[in-house]
Amino acid sequence: MTDPARPHRRLAADLPTAPPGDLVLLQGWVHRRRELATVTFLVVRDRTGLAQVVLPADADVPPEETPVEVIGTLVANAQAPGGVEVTEARVRPLSEAAQTPPFELWRPHLSATLPVQLDHAAVAWRHPAQRARWELAAASIRGFRGALDGLGFTEIQTPKLVAQATESGANVFEVDYFGRPAYLAQSPQFYKQQMVGVFERVYEVGPVFRAEPHDTVRHLAEYVSLDAELGFIRDHRDVLATLRAALAGMIGAIEREAAAAVDRLDLTLPALPEEIPVVHFRDALRLVGAAEDEPDLAPDHERWLGEWAQAEHGSDFIAVEGYPMAKRPFYTHPQPDDPRWSNSFDLLFRGLELVTGGQRLHRPSEYDAAICARGENPADYASYLQAFRHGMPPHGGFAIGLERWVARLVEAANIREVTLFPRDLHRLGP
Amino acid sequence: MTDPARPHRRLAADLPTAPPGDLVLLQGWVHRRRELATVTFLVVRDRTGLAQVVLPADADVPPEETPVEVIGTLVANAQAPGGVEVTEARVRPLSEAAQTPPFELWRPHLSATLPVQLDHAAVAWRHPAQRARWELAAASIRGFRGALDGLGFTEIQTPKLVAQATESGANVFEVDYFGRPAYLAQSPQFYKQQMVGVFERVYEVGPVFRAEPHDTVRHLAEYVSLDAELGFIRDHRDVLATLRAALAGMIGAIEREAAAAVDRLDLTLPALPEEIPVVHFRDALRLVGAAEDEPDLAPDHERWLGEWAQAEHGSDFIAVEGYPMAKRPFYTHPQPDDPRWSNSFDLLFRGLELVTGGQRLHRPSEYDAAICARGENPADYASYLQAFRHGMPPHGGFAIGLERWVARLVEAANIREVTLFPRDLHRLGP
Repeated sequence: MTDPARPHRRLAADLPTAPPGDLVLLQGWVHRRRELATVTFLVVRDRTGLAQVVLPADADVPPEETPVEVIGTLVANAQAPGGVEVTEARVRPLSEAAQTPPFELWRPHLSATLPVQLDHAAVAWRHPAQRARWELAAASIRGFRGALDGLGFTEIQTPKLVAQATESGANVFEVDYFGRPAYLAQSPQFYKQQMVGVFERVYEVGPVFRAEPHDTVRHLAEYVSLDAELGFIRDHRDVLATLRAALAGMIGAIEREAAAAVDRLDLTLPALPEEIPVVHFRDALRLVGAAEDEPDLAPDHERWLGEWAQAEHGSDFIAVEGYPMAKRPFYTHPQPDDPRWSNSFDLLFRGLELVTGGQRLHRPSEYDAAICARGENPADYASYLQAFRHGMPPHGGFAIGLERWVARLVEAANIREVTLFPRDLHRLGP
Repeated sequence: MTDPARPHRRLAADLPTAPPGDLVLLQGWVHRRRELATVTFLVVRDRTGLAQVVLPADADVPPEETPVEVIGTLVANAQAPGGVEVTEARVRPLSEAAQTPPFELWRPHLSATLPVQLDHAAVAWRHPAQRARWELAAASIRGFRGALDGLGFTEIQTPKLVAQATESGANVFEVDYFGRPAYLAQSPQFYKQQMVGVFERVYEVGPVFRAEPHDTVRHLAEYVSLDAELGFIRDHRDVLATLRAALAGMIGAIEREAAAAVDRLDLTLPALPEEIPVVHFRDALRLVGAAEDEPDLAPDHERWLGEWAQAEHGSDFIAVEGYPMAKRPFYTHPQPDDPRWSNSFDLLFRGLELVTGGQRLHRPSEYDAAICARGENPADYASYLQAFRHGMPPHGGFAIGLERWVARLVEAANIREVTLFPRDLHRLGP
């Protein structure tokens, strides 16, 4: 039964465009209460923003973070946020009085240390600036999917419980699976490849698990991977073009759908040229002045390349292609004219590795040879190799780490700052 | 470098509307080859459908399932599927000759037994009718998200590695987490509730894990859960209305975006009335003729109610509300006027349980009491309870099992038939 005297709920963001004089119903949390000599200000926070409510000095306002319902009259006030406020209001708490939060959520910045924030994640994420970071993540995921949907991709959901480690036995979590060992998937790599044989183009957004024994600002034991894989490619450059489309979708969705978060964080969105600049690994080593037999790029090399891409190409992204085969997983496709190098790439975003991608092997005989060359037995990969023995086209793909993307976007010092409930060597809660 | 003589790729579905006489490039798999006395027919399968290629009788066509590229001339032929075919064609294999599949993919139905299909999932999913089932799943997920996005929901991604079983210690997988025990989340329940405190309305699509010791046609050890949770509700009826919107989004997306799959499977889409019919648990027992102290509905009761909903309300869905508190998890909100019953519901879809949902407790003191009543200690739930102590509004939510949804939609006898790579008591691969 609807109370006829009860107005419909209005969201904070909609108040400035509502007709003054209207009776309005607000629902949200007590973001701040300020008791002055002659008046009490109550700021209500809902999912869209903040609204100011003016009450008598002796009004009974529940403590901060208590959920409340406010019914009052909307009036224009140039001094109030958004140019409007609610007066002649009745405030009704919707739960028991809230305990005092471990940090003041109404201040412009969260002042608590990172461990305190993480220990109180459910409360810390309520802070508007913190919340904005996840809004970027949510918009990014939506933009990723939308871009790939538009390119004829099919979303898949593949198992996280697997019989075998994807790429190596290291860094894998073991599960007691009805009395026998199983593992948590380190990536959907094997499954997304098999599904190229079905849908040609597939993507998956889901958790991946790495038993990272390191405690760094860039590693998590569980993170969200944005994976894509596509068939009928010429080589890894087609994969890179698809990655560019996915990134454009992510940035576009942030611009369109998370504009308030971008404002709140005062962000500059990344510059993504029509074509992402590409440098061969061999040339990258030369550019950064490293020895020509270096097997990998060091963090300061990546930083240097990021600055170079910005200066030379006006791009926040640069792809390094051709990484030595010796450092890539066994399913990597070699560079046809020189098999020391690979048809794979890393994408650096503002000088940090964000994406790994490339072309994969597709001929069954090449898989057998590559697995034997590692001293392993193709029979151990029998169910994965079925897809290739029964016909797979040239294909490739990439994986974007969601948290790394957001961390670099907001220039977070620690990836845990942008993860809802981070998991690492020491942390399994909340 | 692009070969100037090489036409752009055309998809099979686009051929009927392309101008006859055009030189076309097809890419796909050899779906079928038929060598007749005077001519060889090659049917190429790509992600959009099938295309017929006509070749000389002595043409060298690679075996079925080999990926190929075909360049030829498009001509009209009323006898050919779609009214067009490709002639004067060159066929180039894109990998080694494919091994003969374990079952014939070009036949209208997969004739292999379910275990054989599951053992060869990467190949079985290539069958157009099988593939159509996943297309329904993918469209459903998209429709779910789209409907909730439109209602102001925020997508979240919460950890699957947790320190504690969500609802009970039973049926939970244990993980070796850097030498100490962790568990795989049975649901995102605790996290989605905490995030209501941040975003008011949240959803998550992701894997959940149940160490189901039963081997049934309806249970999986890992499945995809479509979870939603929203704040500032009056009671569970608001949750049910949101569920109705999500289901409408799912059905609408299938209609719009998976029409070919619906045709291929000759499906009747479910009837979803503007308001889902609701019957109280107490009345449901009476309707089905069960004893009034039955704690749950038996499968044949659910079937009966499904038929009744269809006959009485023309609805494929019926909600049973008010389930006895004794049978619901501790965070369930009681029915205010009679706390033997709960403000929760099950949604039956064509007579089978598809969704569980309802209103949750939101006052911290009620949580403490509910946990103590189970003989447990609120301190063991400290991090979860933080959200409530620091202010949570009345809220509720629901969870839809993706595979159950698709299984019922296509009337699959076994949930494994609609799961890409099912996991159960006996199966951990492929």
